[in-house]
Amino acid sequence: MPNDSLPSSVFLKAAELFPTPFHLYDEAGIRNTARAVREAFAWNPDFREYFAVKALPNPVILGILKEEGLGLDCSSLTELMMAERLGFSGEEIMFSANAMPPEEFDLARKLGAYVNLDDISDIDTLAVHGGIPKTVCVRVNTGGTFTFGGNQIMGKPGEAKYGWMPSQLKEGLERLKSMGVKRFGLHAFLASNMTDPGYYPALARILFDLIQTTAAETGLEPAFVNLSGGIGIPYTRDVPPVDIRAVGEAVRQEYVAVFGEPGPGKPGIKTELGRYITGPYGFVVTHAVHEKKTFKHYIGLDACAVQLIRPAMYGAYHEISIVGREHDAPEEIYDITGSLCENNDKFAIDRPMPKIHLGDLLIIHDAGAHAFAMGYQYNGRLRTAEILYTKDGGYRQIRRAETPEDYFATMVWPESE
Amino acid sequence: MPNDSLPSSVFLKAAELFPTPFHLYDEAGIRNTARAVREAFAWNPDFREYFAVKALPNPVILGILKEEGLGLDCSSLTELMMAERLGFSGEEIMFSANAMPPEEFDLARKLGAYVNLDDISDIDTLAVHGGIPKTVCVRVNTGGTFTFGGNQIMGKPGEAKYGWMPSQLKEGLERLKSMGVKRFGLHAFLASNMTDPGYYPALARILFDLIQTTAAETGLEPAFVNLSGGIGIPYTRDVPPVDIRAVGEAVRQEYVAVFGEPGPGKPGIKTELGRYITGPYGFVVTHAVHEKKTFKHYIGLDACAVQLIRPAMYGAYHEISIVGREHDAPEEIYDITGSLCENNDKFAIDRPMPKIHLGDLLIIHDAGAHAFAMGYQYNGRLRTAEILYTKDGGYRQIRRAETPEDYFATMVWPESE
Repeated sequence: MPNDSLPSSVFLKAAELFPTPFHLYDEAGIRNTARAVREAFAWNPDFREYFAVKALPNPVILGILKEEGLGLDCSSLTELMMAERLGFSGEEIMFSANAMPPEEFDLARKLGAYVNLDDISDIDTLAVHGGIPKTVCVRVNTGGTFTFGGNQIMGKPGEAKYGWMPSQLKEGLERLKSMGVKRFGLHAFLASNMTDPGYYPALARILFDLIQTTAAETGLEPAFVNLSGGIGIPYTRDVPPVDIRAVGEAVRQEYVAVFGEPGPGKPGIKTELGRYITGPYGFVVTHAVHEKKTFKHYIGLDACAVQLIRPAMYGAYHEISIVGREHDAPEEIYDITGSLCENNDKFAIDRPMPKIHLGDLLIIHDAGAHAFAMGYQYNGRLRTAEILYTKDGGYRQIRRAETPEDYFATMVWPESE
Repeated sequence: MPNDSLPSSVFLKAAELFPTPFHLYDEAGIRNTARAVREAFAWNPDFREYFAVKALPNPVILGILKEEGLGLDCSSLTELMMAERLGFSGEEIMFSANAMPPEEFDLARKLGAYVNLDDISDIDTLAVHGGIPKTVCVRVNTGGTFTFGGNQIMGKPGEAKYGWMPSQLKEGLERLKSMGVKRFGLHAFLASNMTDPGYYPALARILFDLIQTTAAETGLEPAFVNLSGGIGIPYTRDVPPVDIRAVGEAVRQEYVAVFGEPGPGKPGIKTELGRYITGPYGFVVTHAVHEKKTFKHYIGLDACAVQLIRPAMYGAYHEISIVGREHDAPEEIYDITGSLCENNDKFAIDRPMPKIHLGDLLIIHDAGAHAFAMGYQYNGRLRTAEILYTKDGGYRQIRRAETPEDYFATMVWPESE
């Protein structure tokens, strides 16, 4: 994360313009990474990156990614509605079906999105809700544990709820063929937040082999392989960031080994890299507002799990820095907490930090994905604003903070009886 | 939980009237439990239960609890605003300060609420924001591990961010006395969801001894002991529910041992039992909408972690029953999942259940506290309605479901530039 941080002056200026806490996003960083992903896979003429809306469902950010030529990976009706309003259509949208209300297929089909079927039983649902398209995507789950290289375990897909078993592909795709399908894609997500550059190539080889076999068995044309998400970001300083160009090249080599040189009629490559594209370019900007010395030394922030729930939910590590003193040596050990009456509302436990003074501006890093998106309103706390640090050095509010009226909007009051 | 379940006919009727998923609350169960709590501590003339709003922030439910003579435990500005609108005032409100924005003290003081100071540094904040009242409450943390009976560990308060160290009490309260405080309460929360009936009496004895010592040291009048929450509910069938009358009697015996018989000028007892009062009387009502057989046998519900995040966040167990077949023997082992594209969105893992058919109405139990309240909108999923099964057998919608417009309310769109 530290390589991608903005200069202190940007955070200081933003905190002058907007009340903390807020999420700040770096437009240039997001655009550069989106371009790097496209360039890494430019060898494949049918490549498209579908940004996972769930990672950062902000319309302005999604509009920026559209300008960069990305599509959207949508997982619900509201995400499809956002895609439609932003002008995404047809093959620019991947709709990932996962036990959702069947009616959601209707809008996906109306928009012409690729539909990624999570289960063989989804065939019947799609037939009724929107109809069977000419090209369909199937999510596959290889089961067991996923290992590569020195047999290190990368994930346990066999314990994940997603996808078809490979043994179901022939039956399901033949059925789809009988219903009019001509071409199919294969999708798999076997491990999360992988910073090992070997993950994508290993996954790619599995899917390349599987799509070739399945195409031969079914007589369907292999349309594309969707490598999904899974490429991670380094949340800690000791992990190097993934070199996406090297990953793209390694995937190309696997591609050539299976299909020969890319060209017309050969499978496309699709990716769904939410976290990788925006994760390092989002920051929670917050002030230290409380200091407490009891059995431990606590710093309380004006941010809480509402802004970033990953430490509370997953025990996730997020780097925290003091603006202007990013490189000072650690002097104290702190628990850095939010204001929720919920003991897991801690951004850091036993974290060595330079001395923090009340009023210091702090940055919680790597909050550009699965941060605002996972915010709740526990304790009646409100979700706060999102600010874009624009590519030309401006500051633009791209989501307003909630007000108490937003929190009360769905409530019924006793006096209304 | 099963003892408190409503008859099948209630769930069936509710699911006819309202689209699933929704939260259903049992008004009679909530009222009866609120009364049982009051009766259990009726020996103390100054007893008050402050329902923890964070457990179930629904105005109609809070209005019902007001009718039952309960106060509110508020932890934020919006919760104070709800209390004010519902007509709670003065000592009917306990405001638990926990590293929140200092401005929130102002409304608490304006309403005349008891303010429960989480840290000695809050004294200065309160002095500026609302002023120092005549009676103040102090949250204490005994540190280390909390054991009782056979030395079983009940909690690790020393790792919790809350409260003052006992060694800070004298200094802080003398300071408060110099600022005009005459009386003080002591509050502690040393363990969560305790179904051992010995928890409250053990905690009470600690606080009774401590308030007596501290009163003698400071010359302040001991106003009350706030036993906070901590009394739990049995999420599994093998745990008996807490007998609140027996707990109240055991606390009374500790009280008499320290203070003698209750009477004027002796400390009151306060409690903050959110989960205990509403937890077992709330249900997520949901349909089985997907069945999937891959490496495991999955049932997908129309509910997801948006309705109940405790299994995803804490690995919490919640009983699940099939309406009309509550007592059938288990035949299958299921993973019961929600529709989020998030692998921890599972209500149950490897759960033995009677055979579930698509379209079955299912009930997720013990969703009356920390269920709706903790709902997020991940994947763009929307929070759903809350329905009250009234004490006279009616069905009343007490919160409307969110619409996409609610989800979009704070967004800025690129075209608005």
